[in-house]
Amino acid sequence: MIDVQADAAHNRMVVTFVAEPALAVDAAMAGATVATERIDLRHHRGEHPRMGATDVVPFVPFADLPMSVCIDLAHDFGARLWKELHVPVYYYGEAARRVERRELEKVRRGGFEELFTHITDADRVPDEGPPELNPSAGATAVGARIPLIAYNVNLKTSDLQVAKDIAKTIRASSGGLPNVKALGFELADRGLVQVSMNLTDYRVTNIWKVFSAIRDEAKRRGVEVEASEIVGTIPLDAAVGVIKDAVVEPAFRMDQILEKRVWAAE
Amino acid sequence: MIDVQADAAHNRMVVTFVAEPALAVDAAMAGATVATERIDLRHHRGEHPRMGATDVVPFVPFADLPMSVCIDLAHDFGARLWKELHVPVYYYGEAARRVERRELEKVRRGGFEELFTHITDADRVPDEGPPELNPSAGATAVGARIPLIAYNVNLKTSDLQVAKDIAKTIRASSGGLPNVKALGFELADRGLVQVSMNLTDYRVTNIWKVFSAIRDEAKRRGVEVEASEIVGTIPLDAAVGVIKDAVVEPAFRMDQILEKRVWAAE
Repeated sequence: MIDVQADAAHNRMVVTFVAEPALAVDAAMAGATVATERIDLRHHRGEHPRMGATDVVPFVPFADLPMSVCIDLAHDFGARLWKELHVPVYYYGEAARRVERRELEKVRRGGFEELFTHITDADRVPDEGPPELNPSAGATAVGARIPLIAYNVNLKTSDLQVAKDIAKTIRASSGGLPNVKALGFELADRGLVQVSMNLTDYRVTNIWKVFSAIRDEAKRRGVEVEASEIVGTIPLDAAVGVIKDAVVEPAFRMDQILEKRVWAAE
Repeated sequence: MIDVQADAAHNRMVVTFVAEPALAVDAAMAGATVATERIDLRHHRGEHPRMGATDVVPFVPFADLPMSVCIDLAHDFGARLWKELHVPVYYYGEAARRVERRELEKVRRGGFEELFTHITDADRVPDEGPPELNPSAGATAVGARIPLIAYNVNLKTSDLQVAKDIAKTIRASSGGLPNVKALGFELADRGLVQVSMNLTDYRVTNIWKVFSAIRDEAKRRGVEVEASEIVGTIPLDAAVGVIKDAVVEPAFRMDQILEKRVWAAE
């Protein structure tokens, strides 16, 4: 177990664990079993979108594990969720069975309450199990994906429109940088605004690229970057990628990190 | 053993190994014993400065090991080198017994040949053993230090003077950036010049700072950076430091590297 995050407002717990592939599905089933027994979505309230007591289970490759292994694990886990706990399953991300289910937001739109009446719609039928929610535990999104990077850049202005405009300029959905989701927020207590991002594939668009783009866009508007913020963890190869880009060192490799070499020798 | 480098021109082998502190001195003694038996400096030729068959042995802290442990290891090892192999020892770096011996270059100046006649000079008397070289194995510099970073920046010009001028501007000894040694070289076969550096304390002056300084100095002279080159390994906290500086992320911590967290949990 390497990370647990929970808070009252979201009323939701995110558990991150690392396991050998052969043990990962059993471990995830152990967690899902407790969640199914203890959580009743008919009485659950929280700010975060959700459709299941076990809401979303992404299998993420660590180090050199191929994505195909994580896709297989997702499908094994999804089949067991339905068979053993009677929770219907939607596959998303790299594990999606339908192209329109690649994005988690699309799978989960409307959450438990909307899915209750719409699960029989042709486009919302689960990938595992019949078109019927588990009465208390709802349904689960099961996926495979590379690690996301949550990254924010704070700007020295109180003008929210600057952050919103820059977010729109750089986000993939408005034709900006690929694999970037971005929104503009106010940090009212600090008199700053923030461009808040998810980098959904750091191999395509990494931190340095979005930092430089935002810095340049801000400069064009006469605004300076105050600081940036990497939220949670990033994989070592993403860190190596930032250095490659920032100091133009295209040949820099992960095994030039001393600790990586030492750990590999153990 | 995590790295071995040797080449004919230098006629010299650099061996890097990682060990628990309790085993490090025995391991280093095993290597020094073979070197003392097999290498006779009276018949040795090579481009690199050297004064001993076992020329220099730095103890470098890994991860969270305090420097004081490495200083103690250096002194234990130095005492054994003299007692068991009859090789006199000079302590340098953090293990120096005299302030003027902190710099390895000063300890080793003139090499074996010069030391042969000057070891009895008041300022060249060894820290372990009498003022007399081991006839075939010379003397050894034993130290403690943080990891050095070897870092080069290539410039898109064939004008060697540009590299020499910039090297002079940024190096510590001419009043530039602290803990930076820098020289200008020609990369004749590529039509480029290079500022070649050793960063002797990346906690004070790290890669991003010298990269930015060189890029700006080059720009003032109408020259662009072609690329940069990190030679060998850098510690993970130096990599984290580059990211902190490059994207203005002062709160970024080593345990935000996913692998670091996973390895720490094992």
